[in-house]
Amino acid sequence: AWGPGEPLVMQEVEVAPPARMEVRVKVLYTSICHTDLSFWRGENERQRRFPRILGHEAAGVVESVGEGVEDLAPGDHVVPIFNGECGTCAYCHSSATNLCGTYRVDAFKSTMVSDDGTRFSVVNTSGDTVPVYHFLNTSTFAEYTVLDAACAVKINPAAPLQKMCLLSCGISTGVGAAWNTANVSKGSTVAIFGLGAVGLAVGEGARIRGASRIIGVDINPEKFAKGKEMGITDFISPKACGKPVHEVIKELTDGGVDYSFECSGNVDVLREAFVSTHDGWGLTVVLGIHPTPRMMPLHPMELFDGRRITGCTFGDFKGKSQLPLLVDQCMQG
Amino acid sequence: AWGPGEPLVMQEVEVAPPARMEVRVKVLYTSICHTDLSFWRGENERQRRFPRILGHEAAGVVESVGEGVEDLAPGDHVVPIFNGECGTCAYCHSSATNLCGTYRVDAFKSTMVSDDGTRFSVVNTSGDTVPVYHFLNTSTFAEYTVLDAACAVKINPAAPLQKMCLLSCGISTGVGAAWNTANVSKGSTVAIFGLGAVGLAVGEGARIRGASRIIGVDINPEKFAKGKEMGITDFISPKACGKPVHEVIKELTDGGVDYSFECSGNVDVLREAFVSTHDGWGLTVVLGIHPTPRMMPLHPMELFDGRRITGCTFGDFKGKSQLPLLVDQCMQG
Repeated sequence: AWGPGEPLVMQEVEVAPPARMEVRVKVLYTSICHTDLSFWRGENERQRRFPRILGHEAAGVVESVGEGVEDLAPGDHVVPIFNGECGTCAYCHSSATNLCGTYRVDAFKSTMVSDDGTRFSVVNTSGDTVPVYHFLNTSTFAEYTVLDAACAVKINPAAPLQKMCLLSCGISTGVGAAWNTANVSKGSTVAIFGLGAVGLAVGEGARIRGASRIIGVDINPEKFAKGKEMGITDFISPKACGKPVHEVIKELTDGGVDYSFECSGNVDVLREAFVSTHDGWGLTVVLGIHPTPRMMPLHPMELFDGRRITGCTFGDFKGKSQLPLLVDQCMQG
Repeated sequence: AWGPGEPLVMQEVEVAPPARMEVRVKVLYTSICHTDLSFWRGENERQRRFPRILGHEAAGVVESVGEGVEDLAPGDHVVPIFNGECGTCAYCHSSATNLCGTYRVDAFKSTMVSDDGTRFSVVNTSGDTVPVYHFLNTSTFAEYTVLDAACAVKINPAAPLQKMCLLSCGISTGVGAAWNTANVSKGSTVAIFGLGAVGLAVGEGARIRGASRIIGVDINPEKFAKGKEMGITDFISPKACGKPVHEVIKELTDGGVDYSFECSGNVDVLREAFVSTHDGWGLTVVLGIHPTPRMMPLHPMELFDGRRITGCTFGDFKGKSQLPLLVDQCMQG
């Protein structure tokens, strides 16, 4: 990507060998996430670093490893994670967070940790070598990429990589939001605002936990068929329901859902998600990326009704430690 | 109180006998809380019901009980609670909330639950009987008041009522915020914004839990001496510290406190409290009453740094069930 909103260019890029504590990975599968689009457009960025290689959801095979890397070797099957885990900092030692002190997700980071340099470069028409910047610790829209070892998760080599690719972002985020962040309980009620990959995965996570009612909300009713497959039990189309969505949800659930998940990146939807929960104990988990400068449209006194709101990064999974288990769970059906 | 901001009047009021599931209480001690002032001024109210009797923090003795009341009898020592507990509704059965479905705090409620009437009246100069409205389930600025039985807590008769009065609001709210809402852990760090009764009680609660550092913030440095007695270890005067308070706190605590408590009712202070916590796991508990129409000045993306924010009513104590234990703990020092 050479500039915000400019068509992506397919071209030869030099990919340097991995430096200390890095690995070079052959990317076999990569998929697209709305966050790639936001950053391609240059939304929500203080500094727009171009050219850069987008993409952060992928699966591949380690091609070579840099000095000091002990947990990965050439041939290992890996899933890149945009939210790394060094395993040794105070954050990684805390059970309360999956935000590593060094390798956590950072939308504004565009170079490698070890030397603040890039591992990608191109030679321009004048014959000069131009650095190409990294994106979200991953840059997977490339045949080869270089990752910090903290951002590459070794998984079961028997797992089908074309599916495991989805665990690199969307599925882990959604399932983990239901399991780890909200800790959805058996028999509880859930509402999901936005039925993209993340929202559908929240449905799957809530279904596995035994939620009694899982309500999906989306302005595109074509998503409802897939939602049904994922365990969503009821659907609301905001443009067709004739009243505010939270009123419909309160009627369906005797006062509101136990958990709501905002997967749209729209602050008005965030508010709907918040007021759709039951007072006293409702929890809203925010998953959407919000490019707006607007603050949250919530009044402080509304917190006294006992509704809570929290963010969630990568489903609150610690990637290196916990993603291999999720892969195994997927393989067991 | 005959009108917003008008001087309170001391006058004869007729106090009717308690109706079904109500008790009439002789108020022996009552104290003043900033919430009384806010409602005297008529702030933050959709409908301003006057005349009314303010006051919600008190202690007294049951004078008579209405039909159906089984857990209280004349002579019982009681503390009124503005946030009642019926003990039988879905909310009272849930361990996740102390907001009763019927008797929870409701700033806009001015009559009794059973018949939507008042138990107070005065005869005006024309000889007409005028109803006097209730306030916060309590109305303790009176020699006698009528409470729903769900809003009167029977306590150990050996407890000194002039001190137990404070458990009716401020102390329970502050101590409970530290114990129940935040669950402050041994060795953790705490910041308290606003050192009124609630803020000081948060300090006491955090001290009892073994917090290693308790930072008090107030624009009035005269409060620091009392704060020290309550266990607060460090003090910041925002007008004197020369930089934003959250920067001072981050320096004092290696990146931020584990818990912050907003006890000021000011949304800019709320923001300072929020950003003063450590990323990854910081929790802000909002205790202040915010009369402003302004929304919370927090951006949704800030939730992704792992900081959380929650409200707290009456320290998340279930009043009828748990206040008697707190009284006993007070008596044991």
